[in-house]
Amino acid sequence: MIEAVNLNADLGEGFGAYSIGNDQAMLDIVKSANIACGFHGGDPLVIRRTVRLACNNQVSIGAHPSFPDLQGFGRRPMSLSDEELESIIGYQIGALIGIAKSVGGSVTHVKPHGALNNMAAVDLAIAKVVVRAVQDLDAGLILLAPARSRLVQAGREAGLTVAEEIFADRGYGEEGDLLPRSMPGSVHHDVQTCVDQIVAFLRAGAIITRSGKHIPTDIHSICVHGDSPMGVSVARTILEVLESNNIEVHPLPKILESAGRTTLQGGVRATTAVGQS
Amino acid sequence: MIEAVNLNADLGEGFGAYSIGNDQAMLDIVKSANIACGFHGGDPLVIRRTVRLACNNQVSIGAHPSFPDLQGFGRRPMSLSDEELESIIGYQIGALIGIAKSVGGSVTHVKPHGALNNMAAVDLAIAKVVVRAVQDLDAGLILLAPARSRLVQAGREAGLTVAEEIFADRGYGEEGDLLPRSMPGSVHHDVQTCVDQIVAFLRAGAIITRSGKHIPTDIHSICVHGDSPMGVSVARTILEVLESNNIEVHPLPKILESAGRTTLQGGVRATTAVGQS
Amino acid sequence: MIEAVNLNADLGEGFGAYSIGNDQAMLDIVKSANIACGFHGGDPLVIRRTVRLACNNQVSIGAHPSFPDLQGFGRRPMSLSDEELESIIGYQIGALIGIAKSVGGSVTHVKPHGALNNMAAVDLAIAKVVVRAVQDLDAGLILLAPARSRLVQAGREAGLTVAEEIFADRGYGEEGDLLPRSMPGSVHHDVQTCVDQIVAFLRAGAIITRSGKHIPTDIHSICVHGDSPMGVSVARTILEVLESNNIEVHPLPKILESAGRTTLQGGVRATTAVGQS
Amino acid sequence: MIEAVNLNADLGEGFGAYSIGNDQAMLDIVKSANIACGFHGGDPLVIRRTVRLACNNQVSIGAHPSFPDLQGFGRRPMSLSDEELESIIGYQIGALIGIAKSVGGSVTHVKPHGALNNMAAVDLAIAKVVVRAVQDLDAGLILLAPARSRLVQAGREAGLTVAEEIFADRGYGEEGDLLPRSMPGSVHHDVQTCVDQIVAFLRAGAIITRSGKHIPTDIHSICVHGDSPMGVSVARTILEVLESNNIEVHPLPKILESAGRTTLQGGVRATTAVGQS
Repeated sequence: MIEAVNLNADLGEGFGAYSIGNDQAMLDIVKSANIACGFHGGDPLVIRRTVRLACNNQVSIGAHPSFPDLQGFGRRPMSLSDEELESIIGYQIGALIGIAKSVGGSVTHVKPHGALNNMAAVDLAIAKVVVRAVQDLDAGLILLAPARSRLVQAGREAGLTVAEEIFADRGYGEEGDLLPRSMPGSVHHDVQTCVDQIVAFLRAGAIITRSGKHIPTDIHSICVHGDSPMGVSVARTILEVLESNNIEVHPLPKILESAGRTTLQGGVRATTAVGQS
Repeated sequence: MIEAVNLNADLGEGFGAYSIGNDQAMLDIVKSANIACGFHGGDPLVIRRTVRLACNNQVSIGAHPSFPDLQGFGRRPMSLSDEELESIIGYQIGALIGIAKSVGGSVTHVKPHGALNNMAAVDLAIAKVVVRAVQDLDAGLILLAPARSRLVQAGREAGLTVAEEIFADRGYGEEGDLLPRSMPGSVHHDVQTCVDQIVAFLRAGAIITRSGKHIPTDIHSICVHGDSPMGVSVARTILEVLESNNIEVHPLPKILESAGRTTLQGGVRATTAVGQS
Repeated sequence: MIEAVNLNADLGEGFGAYSIGNDQAMLDIVKSANIACGFHGGDPLVIRRTVRLACNNQVSIGAHPSFPDLQGFGRRPMSLSDEELESIIGYQIGALIGIAKSVGGSVTHVKPHGALNNMAAVDLAIAKVVVRAVQDLDAGLILLAPARSRLVQAGREAGLTVAEEIFADRGYGEEGDLLPRSMPGSVHHDVQTCVDQIVAFLRAGAIITRSGKHIPTDIHSICVHGDSPMGVSVARTILEVLESNNIEVHPLPKILESAGRTTLQGGVRATTAVGQS
Repeated sequence: MIEAVNLNADLGEGFGAYSIGNDQAMLDIVKSANIACGFHGGDPLVIRRTVRLACNNQVSIGAHPSFPDLQGFGRRPMSLSDEELESIIGYQIGALIGIAKSVGGSVTHVKPHGALNNMAAVDLAIAKVVVRAVQDLDAGLILLAPARSRLVQAGREAGLTVAEEIFADRGYGEEGDLLPRSMPGSVHHDVQTCVDQIVAFLRAGAIITRSGKHIPTDIHSICVHGDSPMGVSVARTILEVLESNNIEVHPLPKILESAGRTTLQGGVRATTAVGQS
């Protein structure tokens, strides 16, 4: 098993009178927060309050930019030009940095949201636009991306520090891709299956597909969800399992510190921080 | 007359398929651009293109944050809590900084838009929230505010570098305030009146009210508008008049360099750069 | 006590991934639903599903138009021109009628939402614009308005059928107005106080103010809220109290049938349906 | 040549401070207006004023519903569920009917906008959802659709009265489809080519493709555009050509009156009104 890993969750996704997810509970569990930037959720006031809470909890902050689609919660595919896509990503990351600076915090990573993340995970052209948007704004930002995805590849090739994440509650296909939500087995509906999957992946240092195939991967972070009671329970149980296995849980920047050196030098796969037992 | 002054205009206020104002013409005339940040106009793509154009024209860039009111173009008064107001200002400035950094530019000033600017000009409590929002994000940003307004006062008291601007096309009341648009004489409708007003103000080193009263003021910048053919013509004529009077026209940061020292030390009114002839 | 009354609630106020309130529980209790029209909540899909549920529950449908302010949930005062206000009201009522017709339902009343309702309740000029907007679209629509408000007055004077409503969870000032939420005693925080208030008002045929003063009023409807567990409990208890007192609970159109005749003839206060015991 | 035809244009697409197209000029030329419904353009005030102008000019009114995408002006493909698509169409048509009723007008046709229209023209499943949305709201509404498109087919099969339109400024592919804007020859850039195309199509009673192939079609309406000076000129010239050829120009309902009977009885292609010379 690895020595240390990150736990991350999507937070700050409320809007005006609307709240979604249990941010307070999640901030006691995770070490990094992907904070909505206003395009799929998160108005400026919600963002500001979430950033403050994250700072108070020593949770590192990431921008969670999305397609401009509040009604669809950023989950609907959109086809934008490269220039427009770069613009909306730069705008959103900048907005979050602005609010973070205002309250004395800082933004250390970026993770695309919803349909944008799904598309960048499998489409290298879109992944490259996302990477360029991050890099042009601040090449020191960590890119948090689905393990083994095109987005990881694009980020590494461009020289960004990339953190690879695995999901607790989603089934994986034979290429290491997330199964589409429409397929049976794509979403796990009980706590134990979720926790078992994480333990298995960490032990194997690999994504394990539906058929049992192992796809070796770095695992810098585990993504958990706070928008259901089960999600919070999954997150809490995973944290307990990690602690009982003496795996430290840190904010992303600390996890990447050691891994990052290898990753950045020549694009070789990092092995230090996530070495297998 | 003063030796140097700034010319500024509101730009980048288009949205999607909609364009408003003649940005290209104005960028050949002004030295500082107040660029919309998406809340009253200016989607990310429009913003990015405008920032690029400004950079190419050696026009300094300012954020032009607004109430969240695309339908009302930010011209309708809204009553927001202090915390929400601070949040939306920090969000918008940050977003513009993000896009500016992405294309190699930088944001050097902030000027509130529309109803927010009008309210901050006369209401000290609102002015203080605006000032705090700017200062918490980056105390090095110049605040561009209506000459002699509460916003100038709030900015100076907080230690911000403040640039005072006068308007070419608006009539002034007895307190140095802009006459409400509903009043006769509040808006000038011909080029000559606009240009004459600017020349008179610069000569006097004062705002001259409807009744002829002189209210002494620093004049760091002249605001011109590009959303009508007359506006562009006014702007161009003012530039010619300035040049024929050997008054240099510079981006805001350069204008404030000399004036700034005095302003920042103890809040004394700056006299160096805008000394009267 | 009166023989029959209506129970109404604001429903369909979710938006995209966001839900608010317990619509399903409320639809088992109330007889009329004020359905959001998209400007403060309620995207078209949410609206459609809510309309369907209302139809299935024999709950009469009303339009619940708002200022255009999703971020503020329609609770922030805005100053719009009369023409714009009329336009947004006509647009929203029409949209709801469109969706209702699509699924075989119909819209029988209109109740303004949030800040718009508050402003129309005390400002006769705004009340008249609301009334004109309703009347120009369909003079057969019932206007549901706070008892004894300017909106009731404006509606009656114009010849609309007006239903007067009282609130279970709000304290009343000496003029029969709702106490502002910022004042102590303006919002009741326990079920019993809410239920007691309704019983007292119905018995008295009057609003009873904080000081105990009785202001006689028609009471066609009782407004209950589903956005808190207490709200649902208040609503259910009120329904039980009404039933145990043999007061029938009907959709608004049925309540207004008998009362409406008197109301419409000469603006005399209706006494038939809400006669006191 | 046919004896009578309709001229239609997309109008009311401004939003707040933004205007687009020369509505006033077009209202002197066309006989039917497709009025934006707020989702790609057209806020309620703009809609109301446009409806009034159309009524004053005896121009018949149609709803022009769009994907919810103001930033993209409704031109970006979106993938919505059938239920959501039906909901947004019903909402928008209803909103326009509401405003039209408020000012004494009525809505007599529906024409989808932008990406929604393009997708419904070639994808029968989407076309059927559009048709169902129109029909469930009001089966008496005329559906205005691209000649020979899947949308025409779906409308006819469902029993709607369908008007087929041709475009003056667009090149046609071998299947009678509009060439994508990215292809050379897809958009005509001079007045004469546009006018010649219309004359040729009307004479032939057919769409003539790039290669010269004739695809026979009903032609009930000609779509012209007012968002460029050339567009207005094309529209005016087409009107003159029609008049000099003694082809009458009428609002859509009148054009469909005679054609409609045939169309509605058994889905046979209409020949009466658009019979060839």
